[in-house]
Amino acid sequence: MLIIMKKIATKKQIQNIIIIAEEKNYKPHIISGKDKVSIAILNNNNEIINLSNFLGLDGIEEIIPITKSYKLVSREIKQDNTIVKIGNVCFGDNSMPVIAGPCAIESKQQALEIAEIVKKAGAVIFRGGLFKPRSSPYSFQGLGKNGLKILIKIRKETGLAIVTEAMDIENFNILEEYADAIQIGARNMQNFSLLKRAGKSLKPIILKRGMCATLQEWLMAAEYIINKGNNQIILCERGIRTFVKHSRNTLDLSVVNTAKQETHLPVIVDPSHAAGIRDQVIPLALASAAVRPDGLMIEVHNKPNEALSDGAQSLFPNQFKTLMKKAKAIYSLAGKTN
Amino acid sequence: MLIIMKKIATKKQIQNIIIIAEEKNYKPHIISGKDKVSIAILNNNNEIINLSNFLGLDGIEEIIPITKSYKLVSREIKQDNTIVKIGNVCFGDNSMPVIAGPCAIESKQQALEIAEIVKKAGAVIFRGGLFKPRSSPYSFQGLGKNGLKILIKIRKETGLAIVTEAMDIENFNILEEYADAIQIGARNMQNFSLLKRAGKSLKPIILKRGMCATLQEWLMAAEYIINKGNNQIILCERGIRTFVKHSRNTLDLSVVNTAKQETHLPVIVDPSHAAGIRDQVIPLALASAAVRPDGLMIEVHNKPNEALSDGAQSLFPNQFKTLMKKAKAIYSLAGKTN
Amino acid sequence: MLIIMKKIATKKQIQNIIIIAEEKNYKPHIISGKDKVSIAILNNNNEIINLSNFLGLDGIEEIIPITKSYKLVSREIKQDNTIVKIGNVCFGDNSMPVIAGPCAIESKQQALEIAEIVKKAGAVIFRGGLFKPRSSPYSFQGLGKNGLKILIKIRKETGLAIVTEAMDIENFNILEEYADAIQIGARNMQNFSLLKRAGKSLKPIILKRGMCATLQEWLMAAEYIINKGNNQIILCERGIRTFVKHSRNTLDLSVVNTAKQETHLPVIVDPSHAAGIRDQVIPLALASAAVRPDGLMIEVHNKPNEALSDGAQSLFPNQFKTLMKKAKAIYSLAGKTN
Amino acid sequence: MLIIMKKIATKKQIQNIIIIAEEKNYKPHIISGKDKVSIAILNNNNEIINLSNFLGLDGIEEIIPITKSYKLVSREIKQDNTIVKIGNVCFGDNSMPVIAGPCAIESKQQALEIAEIVKKAGAVIFRGGLFKPRSSPYSFQGLGKNGLKILIKIRKETGLAIVTEAMDIENFNILEEYADAIQIGARNMQNFSLLKRAGKSLKPIILKRGMCATLQEWLMAAEYIINKGNNQIILCERGIRTFVKHSRNTLDLSVVNTAKQETHLPVIVDPSHAAGIRDQVIPLALASAAVRPDGLMIEVHNKPNEALSDGAQSLFPNQFKTLMKKAKAIYSLAGKTN
Repeated sequence: MLIIMKKIATKKQIQNIIIIAEEKNYKPHIISGKDKVSIAILNNNNEIINLSNFLGLDGIEEIIPITKSYKLVSREIKQDNTIVKIGNVCFGDNSMPVIAGPCAIESKQQALEIAEIVKKAGAVIFRGGLFKPRSSPYSFQGLGKNGLKILIKIRKETGLAIVTEAMDIENFNILEEYADAIQIGARNMQNFSLLKRAGKSLKPIILKRGMCATLQEWLMAAEYIINKGNNQIILCERGIRTFVKHSRNTLDLSVVNTAKQETHLPVIVDPSHAAGIRDQVIPLALASAAVRPDGLMIEVHNKPNEALSDGAQSLFPNQFKTLMKKAKAIYSLAGKTN
Repeated sequence: MLIIMKKIATKKQIQNIIIIAEEKNYKPHIISGKDKVSIAILNNNNEIINLSNFLGLDGIEEIIPITKSYKLVSREIKQDNTIVKIGNVCFGDNSMPVIAGPCAIESKQQALEIAEIVKKAGAVIFRGGLFKPRSSPYSFQGLGKNGLKILIKIRKETGLAIVTEAMDIENFNILEEYADAIQIGARNMQNFSLLKRAGKSLKPIILKRGMCATLQEWLMAAEYIINKGNNQIILCERGIRTFVKHSRNTLDLSVVNTAKQETHLPVIVDPSHAAGIRDQVIPLALASAAVRPDGLMIEVHNKPNEALSDGAQSLFPNQFKTLMKKAKAIYSLAGKTN
Repeated sequence: MLIIMKKIATKKQIQNIIIIAEEKNYKPHIISGKDKVSIAILNNNNEIINLSNFLGLDGIEEIIPITKSYKLVSREIKQDNTIVKIGNVCFGDNSMPVIAGPCAIESKQQALEIAEIVKKAGAVIFRGGLFKPRSSPYSFQGLGKNGLKILIKIRKETGLAIVTEAMDIENFNILEEYADAIQIGARNMQNFSLLKRAGKSLKPIILKRGMCATLQEWLMAAEYIINKGNNQIILCERGIRTFVKHSRNTLDLSVVNTAKQETHLPVIVDPSHAAGIRDQVIPLALASAAVRPDGLMIEVHNKPNEALSDGAQSLFPNQFKTLMKKAKAIYSLAGKTN
Repeated sequence: MLIIMKKIATKKQIQNIIIIAEEKNYKPHIISGKDKVSIAILNNNNEIINLSNFLGLDGIEEIIPITKSYKLVSREIKQDNTIVKIGNVCFGDNSMPVIAGPCAIESKQQALEIAEIVKKAGAVIFRGGLFKPRSSPYSFQGLGKNGLKILIKIRKETGLAIVTEAMDIENFNILEEYADAIQIGARNMQNFSLLKRAGKSLKPIILKRGMCATLQEWLMAAEYIINKGNNQIILCERGIRTFVKHSRNTLDLSVVNTAKQETHLPVIVDPSHAAGIRDQVIPLALASAAVRPDGLMIEVHNKPNEALSDGAQSLFPNQFKTLMKKAKAIYSLAGKTN
């Protein structure tokens, strides 16, 4: 922590900061500038320095925290990529596996049909929600437990691994047995109880970025999971809330590489939720591939106009097919070293 | 829903919209403008019109949803204010009761001392967290169940009703018995499982606005609760996330009156979390009183510099005392009718 | 500037930073932490340290700028309030003068009628635009030069001082002679040419905060003016752009006191533009008074439903009258010291 | 415009809306829904319907504007792409010409060296600022008029066309003679005086999107130019302001295709300003290419660490060379039709 003292701070005020820092067992360090003094407060152990200890003391102009609060997810702790495995598919090994499927599973027939479409087009993991976090209680809430058999059937018939979302601990307890990976949605990114539960699981977790989460908050959410013992975490960017009106959210592609510098965990992109409108999904998916994420997640529906949830952003089968070809080629091209 | 057709839309394209609308049992209504046609799609029953049915059809320029999706929370359904009672305190009856206390309960002594301070200053409800949603797993997570006795003791000794936060269903099940009202925090505003649980409770719920929630989303979250049978809901504005760097969040005071026009539920303001810095809490609290909310929630600590959580934004006892006097007077003044 | 080195930074990398800093005539200062090194880079003179000199060098984890770049507007340079005088009215002397009038001057009769209304209600300065920054070229652009006589007439007949907006240097040259103060609008906050021109004027300047300006950027815009010799600057908060849909902008009341801590210049609030809707203007104006700004600016129209510009946010005369009484009383109440 | 009446609106209130609409010579149209009435207000001519005429009338629940206010820039008016020519380079003809150069021209040698580097790598237009909009008056403000000869020299020696920025009308008057295209920066996007001046020019204009401009506002800014007679306008996305801290701005790639659907004008992308950090520029530039914009604008410097302005975001020559190859290939790939 860096405490910048006011120009007019007195010696006594500076001395007071030093005393308090030493009382708390921190290590203060005075830096005398041309016309003001700053005090670096270092810690002697792993605890974060408590801002409240200094805030409001006389003579202080500004307090700047300098320590990052995430630890186990940090690339400082572990410099090589963590490889996360969902079924047989690896994330984090310089490839871009594609997870695809409908927003919600509506029926066995719909799910199977879509699973076969996306598999044929090159997707390696199937996604589909049974428990749906919908803004309105009057919207379709998903098939719930009744859909579990469909998941099993899809895996059996197509060989695709299955990702589905848990909205709470109870969902998690049920799905853990059936799914190959469990997604925690954007609205639950700071549902700390759910994160702790995920941390005790052996199943890989896909952690979506909250709609207004900073990179720091997102990584801290992952820290909650890894801290309980589960390091099989995939981070998924899905757009942030901005003032913009022409798209549902604004896809933040700059976060992908910055996150990968900060953490050893894989980072994937879901352009479907960011766009909210089919026409925007395709260019955003190609743009995503160009930043070389560790994977993509795309919504596809066999009959988007009949979808019970988020049909407006689901691709038609043919669109997905073309997209897959291009996305894969762009990913390779962007990664060439000469 | 209003569908605006392109200038160049053909008669056949317009006809196609009409056919689909009728198939879905909606009521289409053509409006011929100077140079383009719009089609109002009305519903015959209470279902929301499914956007996906029309999105992407040829000839459409824009689709504008016009129906609000909340129902039971709407002032259209119930025109008079809903009065929510926590203990003996009424919210929604043209008064501004104040809820105050520390961010987290740290010990019996700390909690009791603060409870007596805030009571003396005029607060009528005590707040204090046992289960704390902290960004970092390494921060103080609250006393948990061990603090339940403290809550009981405070109520017994001071007569103040108690508000505390539930982070998940498990917390809720425990706290329901001990607390007079249960708070659902900003990060859980769209934790739909928790909302449904709250809807089945007989205890009043304080529902904080999510950091990036629109008014519509906030009311829909309340709809989840009321829809399950519990209409004892207090909405609490606590600041939204913006690009601003000088305060933690930006308090959105314009939402108070707009929300009260839309819903019959009481709306209160928490300026402490919006500010994040003690110096800003006092002016923002007075500003809040001036928009005549149905209550205030303020963080107070007996020793803010020693607080284990959010000390930086907690008021000193004396500050709170002065604030209370002024806030009450401003509230009255703002409400005078001549 | 504080350079935080990576945990794995080598001695050579650290040495390299030191060498470059010394070459550039800065003063580097090493701080050895528990597991990483930070380097404070201080300057020996008044120049800002050039970030580009260090960015991208090996071994650096993060660079944190710590010097504020504004100087002459800073309260560090001048600790007492600057009093800005428009006509005989003082801003910055612990009072809250009110500037009121229509968005645009439409005719002599309209302007005079409104001027008399607002004067009678207690406003001390008249506002009204001749050159209007409208989003659309097809909207009413103001009377332009043809309205100058109206301004003179209003001042003569009512004794009110006149504030009007300059959109460019040409406008400024014309208005400087006729107006008592010149406003630079939110959209022009970083029109540096206009700021420089304002800096050479003897007339007081009202500098509105840009819709997405940080406090730092706003103060730097004022620095452009003061740097050219004009210290008669009033800062005006008018709402920021956020994701919110229920109001045009979000009024950022926390900025008022924070700005006043940073600068010696007066800070006023315009709640009309923030709200964009009449119903929200009144509560926001009262809330503004509660944070004790150095003034208010309010839009009033004799016939809001006929206004050629921003009628939706203009108050009716009676509303303004009531508002004035309450706002003044709230301002006094909020400022009481016991 | 669509006026939605409250459920409880009386017949008289509805009738009142109709009367006012007819008085104003609009065409009202009643739509009776299941439980409420809406009134579509259509105009008989080209004027925009004045919101103020209806706002605040009794019985109204909500007013929804439905007409877009831009006209001449709209693809409804002109369905084929407008081709904008800078020198011999065409924008808008399904190609992606690249504009490159330093943020600011610092010296003849620097500028020429960079111009040759970018030309060799495949850029077809040189960019470089003489008049620089800097947040601080103490930062390098550009060479101003003294740099004009350098522009001429670069064109003569390299054959590249020249783009440079005008910050005000005076700059514009000077630069119009020397530059092949004139840029209007993000901070000036709503400097309506400058836009009108640009509209009278014969030179092509590059109009950057304001940091917090909606698509609608951006197109309206272009409308100001085209409305005065100049249709040679290139729109340039350069990132929007969000709550995000890891990058300077958030590049909004979804706007590219949406803008191209709305307008016939070409749309290009500047990833350098969005990123603000060199490491992010390369992936964002490739992502930009994948959405198939009508061009790219990239900052390149021969010695980024010595740059007087925005060195942190300028690419090294070698980085630019690699980028060019990949970006061109990705652009082609993304555009393949099978």
